[in-house]
Amino acid sequence: MRSVNIAILGCGNVGKYVVKNLFELRNFIKEKFSLDINVKKILVRDKQKERIAEGFKIPQHLLTTHFSEIIDSSPDIVVELIGDLENSRTYIRECLNRGIKVVTANKLVLTFDDEIFQNPNVFFDASVGGGIPIIRTIINSVPDDIYEITGILNGTTNFILSYMEEGKDFQESLELAKKLGYAEPDPSFDINGTDAAQKICILSALVFGVRVRPNEILKEGISFITKLDIDFAREFGYSIRSIAISRKKNYEGEEKLEVAVYPALVPSDSPLAQVKGNLNAAVIKGKRIGELFLKGEGAGGNPTSISIIADIIEASLTYRESKKEFLAPNDKLIHHDMMVSKFYVRLSVVDNPGVLAKIADSFGKNNVSIESVLQKGRGITISEPVPIFIITHECLERDIKRALEECSRLDVVLQTPFYLRIYQ
Amino acid sequence: MRSVNIAILGCGNVGKYVVKNLFELRNFIKEKFSLDINVKKILVRDKQKERIAEGFKIPQHLLTTHFSEIIDSSPDIVVELIGDLENSRTYIRECLNRGIKVVTANKLVLTFDDEIFQNPNVFFDASVGGGIPIIRTIINSVPDDIYEITGILNGTTNFILSYMEEGKDFQESLELAKKLGYAEPDPSFDINGTDAAQKICILSALVFGVRVRPNEILKEGISFITKLDIDFAREFGYSIRSIAISRKKNYEGEEKLEVAVYPALVPSDSPLAQVKGNLNAAVIKGKRIGELFLKGEGAGGNPTSISIIADIIEASLTYRESKKEFLAPNDKLIHHDMMVSKFYVRLSVVDNPGVLAKIADSFGKNNVSIESVLQKGRGITISEPVPIFIITHECLERDIKRALEECSRLDVVLQTPFYLRIYQ
Repeated sequence: MRSVNIAILGCGNVGKYVVKNLFELRNFIKEKFSLDINVKKILVRDKQKERIAEGFKIPQHLLTTHFSEIIDSSPDIVVELIGDLENSRTYIRECLNRGIKVVTANKLVLTFDDEIFQNPNVFFDASVGGGIPIIRTIINSVPDDIYEITGILNGTTNFILSYMEEGKDFQESLELAKKLGYAEPDPSFDINGTDAAQKICILSALVFGVRVRPNEILKEGISFITKLDIDFAREFGYSIRSIAISRKKNYEGEEKLEVAVYPALVPSDSPLAQVKGNLNAAVIKGKRIGELFLKGEGAGGNPTSISIIADIIEASLTYRESKKEFLAPNDKLIHHDMMVSKFYVRLSVVDNPGVLAKIADSFGKNNVSIESVLQKGRGITISEPVPIFIITHECLERDIKRALEECSRLDVVLQTPFYLRIYQ
Repeated sequence: MRSVNIAILGCGNVGKYVVKNLFELRNFIKEKFSLDINVKKILVRDKQKERIAEGFKIPQHLLTTHFSEIIDSSPDIVVELIGDLENSRTYIRECLNRGIKVVTANKLVLTFDDEIFQNPNVFFDASVGGGIPIIRTIINSVPDDIYEITGILNGTTNFILSYMEEGKDFQESLELAKKLGYAEPDPSFDINGTDAAQKICILSALVFGVRVRPNEILKEGISFITKLDIDFAREFGYSIRSIAISRKKNYEGEEKLEVAVYPALVPSDSPLAQVKGNLNAAVIKGKRIGELFLKGEGAGGNPTSISIIADIIEASLTYRESKKEFLAPNDKLIHHDMMVSKFYVRLSVVDNPGVLAKIADSFGKNNVSIESVLQKGRGITISEPVPIFIITHECLERDIKRALEECSRLDVVLQTPFYLRIYQ
């Protein structure tokens, strides 16, 4: 039986559950792994605040407000759950310098600090996918040429989009997500794709050895999705999901990378479309392994703490000497204008004869060919706008943009045309 | 860079792919894990036979027909892929005695040899789920109180059942499975549930620490499923899948275990129903982790070899000292007659007034209440049989059996009634 001393930095929601579950699972971990894991110290800002997780009260005597006491407790592993950039990075570096292994779920540090990210003694499965072991699976279970990883990595946006499928609009769905605790009071980082962008950048670095920053990738939020889009996507056989994608693309004979976060139409019978509510998921595609699909709880104190505890166990049992290496980003990332895709287009037009011909003409002149068109209902007067929905064949994103620019100059087209990519 | 010497016992389909992929991935594994993996010797019965995997020819000089040469090659890890019970067990024990770690996919040895199964230096992720890291996920990623694991662990039966959903009958589907290489020339161990039973016994031992043998558990094959069942299950909102299940059940205040393999009705919108073709999948349910779902390729040289290579890497990097411990089986397993479930029932009856009343009476007298009934079409003459489909509310399996025995004695009931469990 080996004794493992743990110190924890930060004791918010996830931190509380880590402490509770390490206590509850202590005998289980002794039996299964011959490890006796002891929580020695917890760094907090306020020692007086009461911290309770499912009735378990965090013992007051473990709390400290001084990082020096963390070090003095001689931890084998420090679990960093503060989540900011500057303090966390300082603490993590200090620990690593002293030979202490680090477990963290800190997306900011992992995205922006190469040294910490590359350090083999840093374990961060919980930073992506909450309770789903996406990172551990990539690292430990798929020694293969992975050519794509696509995920639903943000539970808030997935909850909203799947609730909108039940006929609600964006705002109602967001309010419910807040009420149920699936959205933060300020949910902008979730809604606009920032959270998922950080996660897909972490996965890209792991899978492709390419260091991409969140601000370098295409990132689109979901606030422009309407009930109309959800309904008409369904008529075409699709669901709308906010996906985070990182995949190899052959572009003019060279191997490039698409890394992006955007709402896309996914086939209704595909695994990603079946991800409902605030769940997360990932599809890992490898040359030999085929498609591996993982789905589960992407957030929450209990599931996330289990990922962290799994990291603590792995850190205790594993000896790693290798460093992950990165390439420069700029010669790999492909600009989205140069990506080939099928597209979904929504236009608002005046309902009179010849409108479709004019639109089709703009599409044709820009090398975009139309696969199907849907127009439902009509205005009460001839001048009232009606929506037209179009699915295109595969074309360059640059070309659909040009076609839609041209359409928006037509006097029969009433609003800025809206488009979404179709995931294939 | 650490050098790791490998020897392989057996060079059938999976073995060939292990050798090919270890060669192809050698640099990848050097970079990612600082391990230089060398295949030193391969034990075969016939050295002259040509062995080729995707154009890669297994080098003749690696082959030997003598186990002593395997030992003489000083392997750090031996990969056992012979797959029988007696020879494999002898070789594996010999390796372990000499301090050589073992990677194996041998379900027979794992199911019947406790010593080998419990040895911490035996790695066997590939024995269940082919390319899906089900075992590695349970061991390394879910340190939680798991209360259920349910899987689709046999690709042959899943292929047949999902092909039957397209309107084919059992025999046609089986023939196609053979033609596509998804079924063995003699597929009985797949069709009758033996293969899945071995796998769920391995998972039960890992998850619940209970040693259960395949012959001790309920095991039902799929050969009695008809197109009618598939179609009417769909009308009720279900798909039929052959599931392997191991879960805790509270029975009269005691914690018992259900371990079984049977075709069941699963809700059409559930993840298991979405598993099509020869894919495999597993749902892992834990107190804290919630539901974790994994899906992927459950067989085939390439996917399975990746699991084996992941085990080789793990065996090279990990130091394990703990032993898995088992409890006796008999005080844990619950007899299926004592299980509560909803049931699907198919009866063949004479189509005349009062039939349903008689059936309902037999059900009622045995504490089985009916949720819904479907009867479609009718005989051309009044004496021609028609099928009746029934979904029950929850009841004891013992009671549905008694009800159906009583029904089968009614003169209006023409064949032995057929029932399936509904998975919830």
